Amino acid sequence: MAHNEVFQYSIISALMDGVASHGTPIARVLEHGDHGLGTFRNMVGEMIVLDGQVYQMKADGSVVHIADPEATVTPFATVTRFRPTTATRATVVGKAGVEALLTGLFPQARNHFIAVRMDGVFRTVNVRTAGGQLRPREGMVDVCARQTTHTFEGVKGTIVGFRCPEYVMGINVAGDHFHFISEDRQRGGHILAFETEGDVDIGAAQMSKFHLELPTEDEEFNEATLKLQAQRIKAVEG
Amino acid sequence: MAHNEVFQYSIISALMDGVASHGTPIARVLEHGDHGLGTFRNMVGEMIVLDGQVYQMKADGSVVHIADPEATVTPFATVTRFRPTTATRATVVGKAGVEALLTGLFPQARNHFIAVRMDGVFRTVNVRTAGGQLRPREGMVDVCARQTTHTFEGVKGTIVGFRCPEYVMGINVAGDHFHFISEDRQRGGHILAFETEGDVDIGAAQMSKFHLELPTEDEEFNEATLKLQAQRIKAVEG
Repeated sequence: MAHNEVFQYSIISALMDGVASHGTPIARVLEHGDHGLGTFRNMVGEMIVLDGQVYQMKADGSVVHIADPEATVTPFATVTRFRPTTATRATVVGKAGVEALLTGLFPQARNHFIAVRMDGVFRTVNVRTAGGQLRPREGMVDVCARQTTHTFEGVKGTIVGFRCPEYVMGINVAGDHFHFISEDRQRGGHILAFETEGDVDIGAAQMSKFHLELPTEDEEFNEATLKLQAQRIKAVEG
Repeated sequence: MAHNEVFQYSIISALMDGVASHGTPIARVLEHGDHGLGTFRNMVGEMIVLDGQVYQMKADGSVVHIADPEATVTPFATVTRFRPTTATRATVVGKAGVEALLTGLFPQARNHFIAVRMDGVFRTVNVRTAGGQLRPREGMVDVCARQTTHTFEGVKGTIVGFRCPEYVMGINVAGDHFHFISEDRQRGGHILAFETEGDVDIGAAQMSKFHLELPTEDEEFNEATLKLQAQRIKAVEG
């Protein structure tokens, strides 16, 4: 796969329906990208893929580097072989700030995807981490009802994320979706809110090609109804 | 691209919003598949791709073989490099009949794609053909309000089509979507209803990989809101 194309394994509606017992080895996902987001089997923790390295950010606050991507499975992940086409420095206040920034940088991307990365010092980063399913097929809304939240202050680190166009809602999350990991790789999670400490380095790329691989020989996936639950996806992932 | 993977250019919601002034050369689409459906610039006629040959089925009833796919543009097409994994013979009555048949052949495909082809004699085939936009950005509902319908009886020919899972509605058409062309390549269109004359040959394949290429440098596409209009898509394409 060329640079700046989206590769995705499974769909977000499958997580909503609790389809997370199986998946694909993370090594298969890394063949398609070095930058991205996802989760792990049974939705235990948040995944961030940064420079081709995969980290599992757990609800107890710990971060595990996935040393063997062949032996670890993901039920949902989105990655790209990231090569930023635009680089800038800016002070960003919250998700509204990054939304305005990306829209300004990419006026032709209303119906395209955008990959983004921000490196620098953050005044605050508020994250959540999903602790995992209590039983097979437990849906993401219930899993996230038990999420742990952490707030980091004055932390150096990296935000990795994507903007997806509205019409992919249900397949992925429409709008902006970011994960954070600290420079020391000890803290991180799914971003609820953040604010930079002055300017940070921002790299981004517009993407017009989307590759979706669906789970096969997966009875949970086959049985799921996968109805669009746009409001509930926004509530847990927006 | 390997066999039995879906390649799609643009999304059906773009046609709903009347995005059809530009597109990609059909030759680019044929690099990804030899079997499929689509339309032409300004929604003039119905496209069928059969054994790598492309035909434009027009509202006046004529069928044009696209001799130069490099010089002809499509604003929306779905194809696969079709290699049927299942072959059978059956009598099929209507879209309900093919729906039951495919569900029986592929019990594990509830949330996957299916490509299908039927060859034989049809007692009746009722088709529509879209005549094209009267102005740029005229939406598909208005275009199809002027559609021409034809009924063929005792005609030998081929049905080409796809089943798409529910969750792709808006990106493609959820459910079954078929086009027909006669063996003499003189008649055809988008199928509204059909019935076989006894058994026909049926080939089909389940597909779990979906590749989407979005229009680039296309102001119409960038400006379109592409809101999901599920009921209206069902009305004109279902």
